[in-house]
Amino acid sequence: MDPQTFLDIATKVTKLKMYPYFDIAHYTLMCVAARDDVPANSSGGTVFSRKHPLSCWVSSMLLCFAGSLIANFLLGEPILTPFKDHKALLTASVVWYLVFYSPFDIVYKMVKFLPCKLAIAGLKEVQRAHKVYHGVVYTAKIYPNSVLIILFIGTIKGAGSGLMKTFERLVRGLWIPGTNEVLQPSFVTKACFLASLVFLMEKMNYITAPHALVYFGVVIFFVYFKLSALLLGIHDPFAPFENLFCAVFMGGMWDAMRRAVATEPKKEEKDADIPAAKSREDKKND
Amino acid sequence: MDPQTFLDIATKVTKLKMYPYFDIAHYTLMCVAARDDVPANSSGGTVFSRKHPLSCWVSSMLLCFAGSLIANFLLGEPILTPFKDHKALLTASVVWYLVFYSPFDIVYKMVKFLPCKLAIAGLKEVQRAHKVYHGVVYTAKIYPNSVLIILFIGTIKGAGSGLMKTFERLVRGLWIPGTNEVLQPSFVTKACFLASLVFLMEKMNYITAPHALVYFGVVIFFVYFKLSALLLGIHDPFAPFENLFCAVFMGGMWDAMRRAVATEPKKEEKDADIPAAKSREDKKND
Amino acid sequence: MDPQTFLDIATKVTKLKMYPYFDIAHYTLMCVAARDDVPANSSGGTVFSRKHPLSCWVSSMLLCFAGSLIANFLLGEPILTPFKDHKALLTASVVWYLVFYSPFDIVYKMVKFLPCKLAIAGLKEVQRAHKVYHGVVYTAKIYPNSVLIILFIGTIKGAGSGLMKTFERLVRGLWIPGTNEVLQPSFVTKACFLASLVFLMEKMNYITAPHALVYFGVVIFFVYFKLSALLLGIHDPFAPFENLFCAVFMGGMWDAMRRAVATEPKKEEKDADIPAAKSREDKKND
Repeated sequence: MDPQTFLDIATKVTKLKMYPYFDIAHYTLMCVAARDDVPANSSGGTVFSRKHPLSCWVSSMLLCFAGSLIANFLLGEPILTPFKDHKALLTASVVWYLVFYSPFDIVYKMVKFLPCKLAIAGLKEVQRAHKVYHGVVYTAKIYPNSVLIILFIGTIKGAGSGLMKTFERLVRGLWIPGTNEVLQPSFVTKACFLASLVFLMEKMNYITAPHALVYFGVVIFFVYFKLSALLLGIHDPFAPFENLFCAVFMGGMWDAMRRAVATEPKKEEKDADIPAAKSREDKKND
Repeated sequence: MDPQTFLDIATKVTKLKMYPYFDIAHYTLMCVAARDDVPANSSGGTVFSRKHPLSCWVSSMLLCFAGSLIANFLLGEPILTPFKDHKALLTASVVWYLVFYSPFDIVYKMVKFLPCKLAIAGLKEVQRAHKVYHGVVYTAKIYPNSVLIILFIGTIKGAGSGLMKTFERLVRGLWIPGTNEVLQPSFVTKACFLASLVFLMEKMNYITAPHALVYFGVVIFFVYFKLSALLLGIHDPFAPFENLFCAVFMGGMWDAMRRAVATEPKKEEKDADIPAAKSREDKKND
Repeated sequence: MDPQTFLDIATKVTKLKMYPYFDIAHYTLMCVAARDDVPANSSGGTVFSRKHPLSCWVSSMLLCFAGSLIANFLLGEPILTPFKDHKALLTASVVWYLVFYSPFDIVYKMVKFLPCKLAIAGLKEVQRAHKVYHGVVYTAKIYPNSVLIILFIGTIKGAGSGLMKTFERLVRGLWIPGTNEVLQPSFVTKACFLASLVFLMEKMNYITAPHALVYFGVVIFFVYFKLSALLLGIHDPFAPFENLFCAVFMGGMWDAMRRAVATEPKKEEKDADIPAAKSREDKKND
């Protein structure tokens, strides 16, 4: 492929308008997530949506605008500002209505149909890259030197719905405190963190490639891993690296060494009197 | 009744000062709500109030100033501002003390005595209308074109205690995630939403009646439905309209059609082999 | 002791720099608190920290900066501002790493060793006095006449971790709504409230002693009660006063009087027919 053509495509991707198609894809996936997230023992989201339309609408909107809502909350800005944009709110509401109440559920079924699902997921990942980038740029403007805050807001803008889930469920009368995004970060959250890091390093001039290329690279990264998750079932390509990192730095190494030290003398004294060994065991458990 | 006299009364109602009487009625009802809201299996609010006065005071104050607290939170303003008003805070604290700890519980018993209850509830509804109106006016000033935010803040100012309940309970060590105001909106919340809509339409010049009349109309509407709830037990006059709306627009119509379509062929094949019918049933459950 | 020497020492304490040692002591105790707070039936914090390092880090940071985070939230300032200070954040992170993952757990064991524990607790109490004082001064600047807000923020700055605990646990997948700082305020919270009151009274010129003496007095008060709690097991010296106060003002007196009134006639009629006494008993239970 001609480098110039590639750069042209990259530049075009950078300047894509999010509004109608990419935003709709995002809203669709969020509304489907709100609809699918029902307790296991319930009779399903359809019955719930018939009885509690307001709760469904509020929780869908919380997910659709999760990134902005949480970022505004953390940056001390008016939380409701995303709802100032009537066009976005109206679009999201129409999408919500179609996903929950379309005749014969065709919209929901279409979204669940694999080719459609892939297309929508692809569009959504482009929008995600856009949101992460603008989150980083915006935060870098108001907190120029606060690396962590910039990374944090970038991640939240891209993957806010994961963090919002705990509270969005509360609106639907569900409370599942045992799982949350911080306890078990999803791949999307980690990818958004990485993308924020890339954009931040670009801002700080550690990456000297043309901006369009960096941006396009992040978009391709998001889309590629999303499609591979949908098609091949690879859910977390970071997991091996994380496990290695945890095993080395997060105590794993020392635990292994301690186990080794603790086991060795035990072996030597294995033939000795059993009560002594037992008392040592007890001590270890303290 | 002479129209001029009526307009004079309406104007007087518009200019009523909330501070001593109407606010006290509001605080009284909120403190009673905090006291009455105890888990079913406990031995009652009296024992709890003796052991945890701080928790009772905080939860009462959260309910008394719920509208302002939540509105400030959502609009990005300092949350504690309602506590700047020492006069209001002191009044609310005195009311709290009297409701929880008056000698022989006379204040609490008086408030529960029907004629007193009606008078207090009436005063409180006048205060509610006042709060909704000022919420709408204030929000319309800072977000001139954001219809939804204006309606939202208007509703919250009038019926914030419902939304606060979930968190106010947490202060008292209670956590009931299965019910909340969004899941099962009370009549008060819906009425506040309607009142906000009326005030907003007046602001946008869709209603051309004199302001005093509109305001007085809302006051009468609040008081009338509150008294009818207390005296006649009519708890939600909106319910029939809502059920109709849900049945038509929130999937009810399509569900009925689908049931009709799904049942017809089943009837035809009723005499056919039973296993086939069973497998279809199973499929439907998927 | 020479008064002049005493005043010199007091002045020196007033001007102590918090950064390296006092802050580290605070971070250490907070990280240990996050590590020790595991559900009773779990196998201990060590296993959890190996599996969920991110959750441990976030919850430790929430505790380390609890005072500022909650105060910012309540005052409508950007919540993330404490994370702008990279030096503090990095120090806290290093402390977190050492407490959770040091080789053979030596740091954790050292912190739990009584002489070290006393030293760290002492340093931390000095830092607490510093935080309460600066909380009061800062709030008095932006809300000059709001006594309650000043007291509230002073208390939160000094004892924010108690209030944060409920939400910090949520990050670690724990949810214990039945206990919170408002329901059962700890001695630390009460002491911070008292210290805020002293500093506020000094601001308002009710206390005319030199500032260094007042400040030093508060420091000694904090350190003395902390050490007596660690060494002698005196956990709440305020408890007797509180119980007395509650017994007199929080309904206890009236309850006793009511019991007396209710019992007296019963005694008189003791010999009378038993069914009547029973029905009275039933009435009392209503």
